[in-house]
Amino acid sequence: MPTEKLDPADLTARLIRCPSVTPQEGGAIALLAGILGEAGFACTRVDRGGIANLYARWGKQGANRAFGFNGHTDVVPVGDANAWRHDPFGAEVEDGVMYGRGACDMKSGVAAFVAAAVDFVRETPPDGAVILAITGDEEGEGADGTVAILDWMAFNGERMTHCLVGEPTCPNEMGEMMKIGRRGSMTAHVTAVGVQGHSAYPHRAKNPLTAMVRLLARLEAEPLDRGTAHFDPSTLAITTIDCGNPATNVIPARATATVNIRFNDMHSGATLSDWLRSEAAAVAEATGVEIGLRIGISGEAFLTPPGALSELVAEAVAAETGRKPVASTSGGTSDARFVKDHCPVVEFGLVGKTMHQVDERVEVAQIHQLKAIYGRILREYFA
Amino acid sequence: MPTEKLDPADLTARLIRCPSVTPQEGGAIALLAGILGEAGFACTRVDRGGIANLYARWGKQGANRAFGFNGHTDVVPVGDANAWRHDPFGAEVEDGVMYGRGACDMKSGVAAFVAAAVDFVRETPPDGAVILAITGDEEGEGADGTVAILDWMAFNGERMTHCLVGEPTCPNEMGEMMKIGRRGSMTAHVTAVGVQGHSAYPHRAKNPLTAMVRLLARLEAEPLDRGTAHFDPSTLAITTIDCGNPATNVIPARATATVNIRFNDMHSGATLSDWLRSEAAAVAEATGVEIGLRIGISGEAFLTPPGALSELVAEAVAAETGRKPVASTSGGTSDARFVKDHCPVVEFGLVGKTMHQVDERVEVAQIHQLKAIYGRILREYFA
Repeated sequence: MPTEKLDPADLTARLIRCPSVTPQEGGAIALLAGILGEAGFACTRVDRGGIANLYARWGKQGANRAFGFNGHTDVVPVGDANAWRHDPFGAEVEDGVMYGRGACDMKSGVAAFVAAAVDFVRETPPDGAVILAITGDEEGEGADGTVAILDWMAFNGERMTHCLVGEPTCPNEMGEMMKIGRRGSMTAHVTAVGVQGHSAYPHRAKNPLTAMVRLLARLEAEPLDRGTAHFDPSTLAITTIDCGNPATNVIPARATATVNIRFNDMHSGATLSDWLRSEAAAVAEATGVEIGLRIGISGEAFLTPPGALSELVAEAVAAETGRKPVASTSGGTSDARFVKDHCPVVEFGLVGKTMHQVDERVEVAQIHQLKAIYGRILREYFA
Repeated sequence: MPTEKLDPADLTARLIRCPSVTPQEGGAIALLAGILGEAGFACTRVDRGGIANLYARWGKQGANRAFGFNGHTDVVPVGDANAWRHDPFGAEVEDGVMYGRGACDMKSGVAAFVAAAVDFVRETPPDGAVILAITGDEEGEGADGTVAILDWMAFNGERMTHCLVGEPTCPNEMGEMMKIGRRGSMTAHVTAVGVQGHSAYPHRAKNPLTAMVRLLARLEAEPLDRGTAHFDPSTLAITTIDCGNPATNVIPARATATVNIRFNDMHSGATLSDWLRSEAAAVAEATGVEIGLRIGISGEAFLTPPGALSELVAEAVAAETGRKPVASTSGGTSDARFVKDHCPVVEFGLVGKTMHQVDERVEVAQIHQLKAIYGRILREYFA
């Protein structure tokens, strides 16, 4: 067992140097398994579908209190490598700032909770379990990442009582925001099929574009809602309409469109699908144009209602940063959407401003601050 | 001077055998110039921009009564030649029906008025002029076709007092319809430029598709009119909308659409352009999306009000077919849209059902009937 404290900035740098672009493991999962195994964690590789995942538990299976951290070691591609001022896999530090792909999303977050957990169980072994669920696929499809770990946990009787996802959650300043839920997301692919004809005789044709425009105008006519206690208003965005008819004297036979909806806890994928289908049916009925819908639901809205867990996290953040984080449900999806079916989950992490960008970076001091916050959360949780 | 009557079916066949696909002359204009020259018509080739055109006048320049016929010898392409049962340039006759490209649109019409005019001036030389304005480009751009002849006529002091365009005008039965005007036609190309963004945050983007849908829905919300004394209601058709954004989590920056308007004599290209611009400006104002319009006006609406000319044509048709034609303004554009600026113009011709189609065809008996109608019109006009 190591006796020296684990340096989370050093660990972040070592992780950045692992080229773990989704779905490559890049050595990152193996590196963490080594450190955690040495620190007394029971480590299990829960690989699935070519994705490397790590489940690490300190303490007994089935403990009454089992605090979990969730995060990912995979990163998005570098993009235009020539546009980077720093080696994307170099972890170079300049003026107290570390550069590299994954610097904020989220090798630093993983390093911070690994370091905090290792120090915590060594310094003040808790009456309970500390669990780290670390995936190598959050940026990709996600089908064999955190989901694979949760599936494996369920099958093997492993359980977290509460979980913190270490994704970057702060828009600009360290400590300003935590996440207690996320909006749901769904996409509807609309196909309108009418009857082709001559532009001079629209009454002899059935214009699919007339139906499409009417349907989309109806969908956008009213806001979906005005927001709820913990959620912003739901949003609907038309992302494309396509027809590809080059002839101005021809009414086309077919057109397609795509609509993306981000919805709060007033809705579900099912209620919104019903609404879309009934609107489409009404327009189809009025125009005689066939309207087909293919709907994909990427995630339902969820909320961990403000309470003991979020309060604990908020107080730990406030103690270390002097800033009490707001409890938000904004932003895109994260693996919290899977964890929420397992146990209460909140998210807190670094400033995410440069995630997925060229010269992604993190202030080194903030990595240390994040480790201190995570350590404080563990101490308070098991106090 | 020939003394035998000119057979219009035979002349149609000879014209069909000229492969005069726009812009090729194919020997058709030369063939007609030969026949008309021999019959005493002063023939002038009014070629322009690679297009062959023929101006033929029997009688004195500047006559008080100068009846004109207008038509074209060019044809649209064959399309899928293998789909034809008959050689498209063979003029084969089967069961009294002649097959070939141009059989109804409109080598038969040209043959009928050429034959009628030649017989008429030989049998009953009129006190006035008979003018044939025949173009080799009606199916193409039309910039150097009838327009070139009219330009040349204006420059040279040539004038028709009335004109008949011999395009097919009967939808199904010989004699059922003549045309006394046409709707105008215009096309608006709409470009909407907003601000790209993430689907999850539509308020940070400006979705050009929202503006496009709203604009198009406004344009289609109300009929342009309910028709006028001699015109059907104006129509508006969206012919395409395109964006090409494959990413469902991205709000695009740009979208385009095309709208085609066929308008009656309640409107002009200018008044409709003003309307389109003011609707676009209102939507741009409301959405913050820039909307650009590129408008092309292919023809203004025009009407030769029912009167002596249309009555003369209608009675000649009724006398030869037993059917009094309705005076319509329906259909696509024709060169009458140019002739109307020169003199009163009406259109009467064969059944157009198979025009532009595979196995385009004409009943041989109807070519003779059409010649008889045109001959009667000439006799009555100069009576």
